[in-house]
Amino acid sequence: MALTSCGEDDVLPGWDDNLRERIREHLESLGVEFAFGHRATDCTVESSEVVVSTETDDGTETEHTADRIVVAVGRQPVTDTVGLETLNLETTEREFLDIDEQCRTSLDHVFAIGDVAGEPMLAHKASTEGHVAAEVLAGRDASTADQQIPAVIFTDPEVATIGLSESDAAAAGYSPLIGEMPFSASGRALTTNSPEGFVRVVVDEEASTILGAQIVGADASELVGELIVAIRAGLSPHDVSATVHPHPTFSEAVMEACADTLDEAVHTN
Amino acid sequence: MALTSCGEDDVLPGWDDNLRERIREHLESLGVEFAFGHRATDCTVESSEVVVSTETDDGTETEHTADRIVVAVGRQPVTDTVGLETLNLETTEREFLDIDEQCRTSLDHVFAIGDVAGEPMLAHKASTEGHVAAEVLAGRDASTADQQIPAVIFTDPEVATIGLSESDAAAAGYSPLIGEMPFSASGRALTTNSPEGFVRVVVDEEASTILGAQIVGADASELVGELIVAIRAGLSPHDVSATVHPHPTFSEAVMEACADTLDEAVHTN
Ligand SMILES: Cc1cc2nc3c(=O)[nH]c(=O)nc-3n(C[C@H](O)[C@H](O)[C@H](O)COP(=O)(O)OP(=O)(O)OC[C@H]3O[C@@H](n4cnc5c(N)ncnc54)[C@H](O)[C@@H]3O)c2cc1C
Ligand SMILES: Cc1cc2nc3c(=O)[nH]c(=O)nc-3n(C[C@H](O)[C@H](O)[C@H](O)COP(=O)(O)OP(=O)(O)OC[C@H]3O[C@@H](n4cnc5c(N)ncnc54)[C@H](O)[C@@H]3O)c2cc1C
Repeated sequence: MALTSCGEDDVLPGWDDNLRERIREHLESLGVEFAFGHRATDCTVESSEVVVSTETDDGTETEHTADRIVVAVGRQPVTDTVGLETLNLETTEREFLDIDEQCRTSLDHVFAIGDVAGEPMLAHKASTEGHVAAEVLAGRDASTADQQIPAVIFTDPEVATIGLSESDAAAAGYSPLIGEMPFSASGRALTTNSPEGFVRVVVDEEASTILGAQIVGADASELVGELIVAIRAGLSPHDVSATVHPHPTFSEAVMEACADTLDEAVHTN
Repeated sequence: MALTSCGEDDVLPGWDDNLRERIREHLESLGVEFAFGHRATDCTVESSEVVVSTETDDGTETEHTADRIVVAVGRQPVTDTVGLETLNLETTEREFLDIDEQCRTSLDHVFAIGDVAGEPMLAHKASTEGHVAAEVLAGRDASTADQQIPAVIFTDPEVATIGLSESDAAAAGYSPLIGEMPFSASGRALTTNSPEGFVRVVVDEEASTILGAQIVGADASELVGELIVAIRAGLSPHDVSATVHPHPTFSEAVMEACADTLDEAVHTN
């Protein structure tokens, strides 16, 4: 039995409600107990166990006993120890370095990439910025402007997202069209005993382009690949759904989610 | 210890030499013994084992003992028992039904799809033809003409292919440009203990489009997804390599193989 103690009121703060729900419910089904709203105040290591003391907003104190403890409270930039002030290099309120689309800081000849340059703090965002900065330094034309950063959470089941969610798309003024394929209707998912999750695509009905995708399930981290390429290239859901996908694969669910936005899904409608 | 007895002189007849080599060597490393050039002539089931007798071209006879026997000699159409002759419906020399791009047989009002309509005898080829035939019957515009059929072999490691191989492309008059990323240079492959295999893409240098891809390795069946979409949409290798892929994933190898055709691979050059 595992236990998660955190000040937040749900798993994965900042992610879509229905993604969070799937992950929370699956973890609960695996025996994970959550203690939302509990702030850790103390921690003692006894012979073979750890005791974590927590407190809630209304003052309730609890002791949680566990075999192991994992601290995952997030990361902060450390930009106040390297003498940036001698360069007159300004940081943001959260102490990140602000960069433009060429990865230039407020000083023309100083570039920054990666975590120090702000969210999302992900390795592929860092390496993309590294490429762009190197190209710009070499005098070539390069920019991060047209790049969207996918995100993966390596939970069980995995979560992968790219671009806009339904609520982001609505907030941005689109009338988003949603297509979904549950893995419970996928032959590959059923035969590999992983029917949890779904592929969801968010489409701009007017332009018939894909705005974003959210995938929960086994192999979500790899499945998002074809959607990130499709989104960057401005492809339509038909471009994906009319492409013959091999059987039996999880990727058929990507094809079917796109078909669903066109009311052409075969396995769910 | 497993044993494969077959009349052929290598595994996977008809596939690229270097794909066959990888699969054969990996299976040998798992303890599979091959008996190429042996034709099965007899088989007897004893109490708890099976004895298969084989013969080679030069007359050598051998007995192979095993726990189980799997017969996988291929499939043939059965079109001579359903009275096609009363319709005057012609079959090909191999007894398949010939169909056009709308899945029509030699008779305008008779359609055929799937295995009976010829190679490749794959489920997704059958369902694609099923869609096309249904659309045509419903009076809509549909065709199999622009569709390429991917193929997956669910071996360990998996093999997935789409479009042209290097030799096919050369034979078709292209000057193919090859990009490759070995999984031994992929963080995800190394941390999941599956460094075997590679992603290879075949590019038309002149038009800068992707002509085909061959993938050997864990998850090849899913990884081919983004390449089949890219190929059908006529995307360039740059379209794929300039798309930010999540880290750590096998799909980064697809991005790197495309970058390799542009001499821009980061992990291998
Ligand atoms: C536990 C964990 C798991 C993660 N998992 C993932 C994941 O699955 N996928 C993903 O995309 N991202 C993941 N991340 C985030 C990812 O690691 C970072 O986004 C990425 O490493 C950022 O790269 P960077 O080059 O900006 O910073 P870093 O990789 O942190 O590199 C900064 C370097 O600067 C050096 N340095 C610091 N101060 C100085 C100084 N004064 N002088 C000289 N050198 C200095 C540091 O030693 C370090 O080597 C994870 C992060 C953590 C902590
Ligand atoms: C062991 C095995 C594994 C396979 N694995 C894969 C794989 O991983 N991926 C893949 O893509 N493909 C795979 N295939 C191939 C795939 O199964 C076929 O390509 C696909 O089923 C073809 O579909 P179909 O509708 O043309 O024929 P079928 O699925 O064979 O359907 C034909 C139907 O017609 C019926 N029928 C026959 N004669 C008559 C009659 N006189 N009257 C009425 N009904 C009749 C049969 O009973 C059958 O239901 C595999 C095949 C085999 C044998």
